[in-house]
Amino acid sequence: MAESMKGMKRSHRCGEVTEQEIGKEVTLMGWVQKSRNKGGIIFVDLRDRSGIMQLIFENGTIDEAGFEKAAKLRSEYVIAVRGIVGRRAGAVNEKLATGTMEVRVSYLRILAEAETPPFPVEEDSKTRDDVRLKYRYLDLRRPDLQRNMILRSEVAYLTREFFHKEGFLELETPMLGKSTPEGARDYLVPSRVHPGSFYALPQSPQLFKQLLMCSGYDRYIQLARCFRDEDLRADRQPEFTQIDMELSFVDVEDVIDVNERFLQYLFKHALGVDIPLPIPRMTWIDAMNRFGSDKPDVRFGMELVDVSDVVKDSEFPVFRNALAKKDGSVRGINVKGQGDMGRKQIDKLVEMARGSGAGGLAWIQLKTDGTVKASFAKFMTEEQQNALIKAMGGEKGDLLLFAADRNKIVWNVLGQLRLHFRDELGLVRKDDFHFLWIVEFPLLEWSDEENRFMAMHHPFTMPMEEDWDKIDSDPGSVRAKAYDITLNGFEVGGGSVRIHQDDIQEKMFEVLGFTKERAWEQFSFLLTAFKYGVPPHAGLAYGLDRLVMLMAQADSIRDVIAFPKVKDASDLMTEAPAPVEDKQLEELGIRVPENE
Amino acid sequence: MAESMKGMKRSHRCGEVTEQEIGKEVTLMGWVQKSRNKGGIIFVDLRDRSGIMQLIFENGTIDEAGFEKAAKLRSEYVIAVRGIVGRRAGAVNEKLATGTMEVRVSYLRILAEAETPPFPVEEDSKTRDDVRLKYRYLDLRRPDLQRNMILRSEVAYLTREFFHKEGFLELETPMLGKSTPEGARDYLVPSRVHPGSFYALPQSPQLFKQLLMCSGYDRYIQLARCFRDEDLRADRQPEFTQIDMELSFVDVEDVIDVNERFLQYLFKHALGVDIPLPIPRMTWIDAMNRFGSDKPDVRFGMELVDVSDVVKDSEFPVFRNALAKKDGSVRGINVKGQGDMGRKQIDKLVEMARGSGAGGLAWIQLKTDGTVKASFAKFMTEEQQNALIKAMGGEKGDLLLFAADRNKIVWNVLGQLRLHFRDELGLVRKDDFHFLWIVEFPLLEWSDEENRFMAMHHPFTMPMEEDWDKIDSDPGSVRAKAYDITLNGFEVGGGSVRIHQDDIQEKMFEVLGFTKERAWEQFSFLLTAFKYGVPPHAGLAYGLDRLVMLMAQADSIRDVIAFPKVKDASDLMTEAPAPVEDKQLEELGIRVPENE
Repeated sequence: MAESMKGMKRSHRCGEVTEQEIGKEVTLMGWVQKSRNKGGIIFVDLRDRSGIMQLIFENGTIDEAGFEKAAKLRSEYVIAVRGIVGRRAGAVNEKLATGTMEVRVSYLRILAEAETPPFPVEEDSKTRDDVRLKYRYLDLRRPDLQRNMILRSEVAYLTREFFHKEGFLELETPMLGKSTPEGARDYLVPSRVHPGSFYALPQSPQLFKQLLMCSGYDRYIQLARCFRDEDLRADRQPEFTQIDMELSFVDVEDVIDVNERFLQYLFKHALGVDIPLPIPRMTWIDAMNRFGSDKPDVRFGMELVDVSDVVKDSEFPVFRNALAKKDGSVRGINVKGQGDMGRKQIDKLVEMARGSGAGGLAWIQLKTDGTVKASFAKFMTEEQQNALIKAMGGEKGDLLLFAADRNKIVWNVLGQLRLHFRDELGLVRKDDFHFLWIVEFPLLEWSDEENRFMAMHHPFTMPMEEDWDKIDSDPGSVRAKAYDITLNGFEVGGGSVRIHQDDIQEKMFEVLGFTKERAWEQFSFLLTAFKYGVPPHAGLAYGLDRLVMLMAQADSIRDVIAFPKVKDASDLMTEAPAPVEDKQLEELGIRVPENE
Repeated sequence: MAESMKGMKRSHRCGEVTEQEIGKEVTLMGWVQKSRNKGGIIFVDLRDRSGIMQLIFENGTIDEAGFEKAAKLRSEYVIAVRGIVGRRAGAVNEKLATGTMEVRVSYLRILAEAETPPFPVEEDSKTRDDVRLKYRYLDLRRPDLQRNMILRSEVAYLTREFFHKEGFLELETPMLGKSTPEGARDYLVPSRVHPGSFYALPQSPQLFKQLLMCSGYDRYIQLARCFRDEDLRADRQPEFTQIDMELSFVDVEDVIDVNERFLQYLFKHALGVDIPLPIPRMTWIDAMNRFGSDKPDVRFGMELVDVSDVVKDSEFPVFRNALAKKDGSVRGINVKGQGDMGRKQIDKLVEMARGSGAGGLAWIQLKTDGTVKASFAKFMTEEQQNALIKAMGGEKGDLLLFAADRNKIVWNVLGQLRLHFRDELGLVRKDDFHFLWIVEFPLLEWSDEENRFMAMHHPFTMPMEEDWDKIDSDPGSVRAKAYDITLNGFEVGGGSVRIHQDDIQEKMFEVLGFTKERAWEQFSFLLTAFKYGVPPHAGLAYGLDRLVMLMAQADSIRDVIAFPKVKDASDLMTEAPAPVEDKQLEELGIRVPENE
């Protein structure tokens, strides 16, 4: 039987009782974490979101009826108690902030009983994911998930606080928008009033925030829910949250400046971590050449070395073929201390390289016993091989791995292997936060599939002034005023300065192979808006889920989202999506052949 | 030709230049509000979101090329200028914060030209709504809309600031949820991965926020986007924003306390308006009896008077029939000073009453010339009529209006007429903010249509302890722990204490005519969650759009939403909703017979 709390008022949360309260009466409410009877005294750990307080029920302090009630308490019962705070008679629990104290209870109410939960509410649960997600409301009681959610709430708050002080306005943009043919797949919403027409849920508020700049709002921010109907990976969700911003009358430096100060503010106040400014910057081409990634984890070395020149005279067909290709190269990484690796493990690395798009992986083992073994030994003179080892800084005990192909593939293969060894060899710590700006991205990216240049960022991205004269002669070499902010090997945000000049915009559409008609069809209201006076503007958006995941040192964004979906985009708790009533579909004028 | 702002950095927003800057150089950027050449000097009003600054272009201060460029400026051009702040040589403009100053420009760049906009960017536009909504990005440049949007941003910020200090966590709940058969019509989102299944966009985060309480998050807040696919009225939008909250271990007084302090904080910091606490409270039955509304505007009198007893012996069939009905009554309002109203106007009032559900409207005119005219004169003795006038406090010059029917209709008719006269006679001021709590709502509402009791708030609303023993004998008389917060005749928020005891919940479902199976089918995961230890909890949600509308003294919520939709739920700017490509529908496994 559940009791009401009529006449009782909580005085503290469990974890917020301090030694100042010793000797005083408190009223606490929460969940029974555990309960045990030891020599006629009942000990209960009472839990709420702030922590745990030990309760003592003893005959004499509490009346007989109360003691009997206490004897019935089981895990996850919800109770309210009144009692006096005292120093612990027993051993101090140093893990708890309240570990020196206990509350001797004089009055108890059971606010709600609880069945035995399907899994224990405890830190670092070993229960299967799908069971925990089905009972997400119980999973969310676990202290580690509670810390994550509280951190997320704090991050959102600090973000708003910082940008509010900086003169940003939080403006809401529509969720029921219009589908655009380019980009990822939209989630659609059938219109009842206009049968056959659909809204689309936003993939980002991109167009709206640019319109707000046209409207003179100057500085906009929004923590915006966004949607993409793509097949999910471990770090993707069908709905996700962006810290989305746009600024008028600014250039790259202004965006970087305010965001560096933001990140410093955020990490200081949310985590007590100092982010020294300025945050280092690396050009896109340096990031690719040195780390094989546009979001390099620079907390450890193992940098890529371009050995194209060193091997250019070797007979090894793989190297020769690669160097004959446009944008072909041979590059290597030196994995220190792994020279004695067994053949099976090396084979696995070769498999991984194939998975990353390479034809294979060449290697040299510099064993600790002084012997040298190379996968391509027969194609190279000893002199050539020694030159290669030297170029790689190879020493006894090292494993040298080489990829040879077009740059794009070489970078990807070695970049992936680098991350593999980072995790395998434990080269970094999760609480070592290292931000890095990636700048000077290429404006365009050649698409073999479409046989044309595509915008690397989006078609409104401003080219760098110093490269603009090459837009006809060598469009692939034009760099953009685009920037990504990376953290520990993850892209946590990105953006660009937008084109506000109609002549540059027209040229961009031309280079992208858009006819004027197509450009207008697709971006009509934005291009119309631009005709009436558009200010120079630039923006940036962070993936909030991923940022919080890294800050929380969690393994998955599912651990920082209260009610996440699984890989098939379903919610195991509510069982959404689900069939609906025929009447609902009739009203919308749509049919589902599947169900007929 | 648009120029870049390379090498220029804005020093101030226009409206943020103060007299401290006189004699100093500033760099301003913004839109040309207007431009005129007067005796060889060009005067330009430069506008940004902060205000307007007058610019002076004069040969000698600016070079010839610059002056020529300035001569080309037209409305809505975007420019950047450098110049020295000075005192105005001409007349001071007292309407502007910067009206004593001007900037003598030494350097000008045209950042973007502008075509002549389809309507002028000016305060209180007289342009047709549909034109303004099509060019919403221009409409949003108008200073009055900018003030509204800035206020909205400020309200959202202050809300988060207040509740953050109070220990609330902002937690995000899913947008892609599950359709529930009760309530308003859902917007549906077809699932691609599960053809034939649908997500529903949330009508509110109700279930999720109750689950978060079950999970121990203690105090939750969210500025949550919600969706209802209903036919739109002037103050409805298909998507709207709620300030949504839920608290654990609380009763009615706790919710009211924190929200009163919130409203005081909000109005003080957003508007400089003092809301004295405590906010008055009125029971639902008093609100209906005195004002004919559960969201009464109490800023003026004209209260309803129950004259059932006074007229019970009259021969007037309308009165007799009404009093013979269950819950029947005769009530009146006294419209001071309207006794000489013409017959046509009175007929209009009768029409209005019919529109509110009445069979008609009875009236007595107490003309200023001393004559008395009553619509039911022939059914009443002079004595009876005088008693009635006396009961109504009728004096020379008053108009007495009477409705006779079941209470529900009588309340509605007179409540509506009261508001009609408020607006007609200008009895209130928009900047006179008067909050009022409505409490002790009925738990249940009889539905003739369904022939059963329905939950007035929702089926988890807690009954008042003192009435619970009447749940079987007289369920209609049981009051609920539900509360609305009203402002100037609008409901701006509402909520309730939730049932957390399974026996009370079961009884509620029984009274509502839910079988146990049906209750479980509909609320399965919430009822399951409740089995594992649910705390007492309560919540409240504000309609943010309406609250900001009232604070901004705007006439429509469209004036406080950046990109609103019109009555047919379409967006005139983006033209959403719109047909999509066949491929998109194929992927979703749905067909649109309309389009085939």
